[in-house]
Amino acid sequence: MQLRFTKMHGLGNDFVVIDLITQRFKLKPHHIRKIADRHFGIGCDQVLAVEIPSRPDVDFRYRIYNAEGSEVEQCGNGARCFARFVRDKRLTGKQRIRVETLAGVIELAITDNRDVRVDMGEPILEPASIPFAAEQQADSYALDIDGEQWQVGAVSMGNPHVVLPVDNVDTAPVERVGPITECHPRFPQKVNVGFMQIVDQQNIRLRVFERGVGETLACGTGACAAVVSGIVQGKLDNTVTVTLPGGQLSIHWPGSGQPVIMTGPATTVFEGQIQL
Amino acid sequence: MQLRFTKMHGLGNDFVVIDLITQRFKLKPHHIRKIADRHFGIGCDQVLAVEIPSRPDVDFRYRIYNAEGSEVEQCGNGARCFARFVRDKRLTGKQRIRVETLAGVIELAITDNRDVRVDMGEPILEPASIPFAAEQQADSYALDIDGEQWQVGAVSMGNPHVVLPVDNVDTAPVERVGPITECHPRFPQKVNVGFMQIVDQQNIRLRVFERGVGETLACGTGACAAVVSGIVQGKLDNTVTVTLPGGQLSIHWPGSGQPVIMTGPATTVFEGQIQL
Repeated sequence: MQLRFTKMHGLGNDFVVIDLITQRFKLKPHHIRKIADRHFGIGCDQVLAVEIPSRPDVDFRYRIYNAEGSEVEQCGNGARCFARFVRDKRLTGKQRIRVETLAGVIELAITDNRDVRVDMGEPILEPASIPFAAEQQADSYALDIDGEQWQVGAVSMGNPHVVLPVDNVDTAPVERVGPITECHPRFPQKVNVGFMQIVDQQNIRLRVFERGVGETLACGTGACAAVVSGIVQGKLDNTVTVTLPGGQLSIHWPGSGQPVIMTGPATTVFEGQIQL
Repeated sequence: MQLRFTKMHGLGNDFVVIDLITQRFKLKPHHIRKIADRHFGIGCDQVLAVEIPSRPDVDFRYRIYNAEGSEVEQCGNGARCFARFVRDKRLTGKQRIRVETLAGVIELAITDNRDVRVDMGEPILEPASIPFAAEQQADSYALDIDGEQWQVGAVSMGNPHVVLPVDNVDTAPVERVGPITECHPRFPQKVNVGFMQIVDQQNIRLRVFERGVGETLACGTGACAAVVSGIVQGKLDNTVTVTLPGGQLSIHWPGSGQPVIMTGPATTVFEGQIQL
């Protein structure tokens, strides 16, 4: 059948968004792979399907699929695109949207300047839960990476992150140090590696080498982890602008026991129709 | 303004095709770069614009732009997509289409099974015109590549090609030998490097390391060059099926003084509208 879709991106992390409320279609893994293929299909990092929820206390359900067809739990950039999509398509008039995801219910809000605010949950700093091998919890840790000594932060945002301070992200050794650190023996489930340049107390620049992926244009959980790490070390204020290769996010964290709030853009690129 | 476009591919070499006959729009380099970007735009190898011709003896003009905004002379995969586009959009009812390109007028034909046949012009075998440093023209040449001895073909299809015989394209050393051969001193304008496995007299398998690009899914001129080289060496018939990573082309060459005829598919993936 002929399927309508919208191509969107959140800081360059791109999505094909499909309305499965006004369209009836069963998306199978071979459809996902076809849609995501950048030469033979539409092309995207992930496919995002908007569906009718299974419970009465939420507005929508969404599912996110990786390019190879498997379903993923959550994605900050995808959540922002979802919220903009349901508003722009007038599937809801609400400013606060509750949505069912594979990772549970999350709440999203559209800001006055059309950005989207996402509750990213509480950061985890306890080493065993990250997981990270350390004798006790600390604000930062000495880490030997291939013979070099680094003083790093370690934070989980549902996925493990290590934050390496650098003087300048443009010249940071992301390609060399990223892959070695990803597989560091003190991170038994591997780790996402952030290279953070602190510009001032309200501004950082960040490049992230994502676990199993490589460097990406914009890692939402990486931005949260870097800011949390900078705050616990006393180097950052509670609200920080993070400049990533794909653009900017605003990260707010009031402190221990509180969730991290991420605010950022979601952009519609084009509308399309494909025969599947 | 809102611009309609069609995403197409020829064996995976993909194009955003824009009708500038029924739509009035001045495509500038920054539009091309936006359109071609795979994360922030539509995403394609090249942008193809269909225009009203400047002379009365042809049906259309088309222009092809690389992702970074520069105009290119010709492209076999793009020519096939162009022909399918103007037929499917009913911009013409003709089966044979004459079109003005930067490389001159070319003639295209739609076959009964909806493939497209393209006249690729006469192959050039004279070494100085390829250009290739050789004492005299031969069916094949001994070539030293980084200390290894190869017996190669050398053909120009408007662009220089060297054809290396291999037993199996799947295990051919494309990544190692491709870049070295591309810059071989005997090819003063560099060279496209084809790795050809002859299956039988009517079938070859081919991988091409394209000059300045790297390995591609389907190189039309590379398929022509490989078949011409195999024919002059007496190893192939006049009509050969070429299996490339992106799919199959049929190449026909009657012999010296005659043009090479390439026949292959052009596929529409989806229709879209973008605000530019």
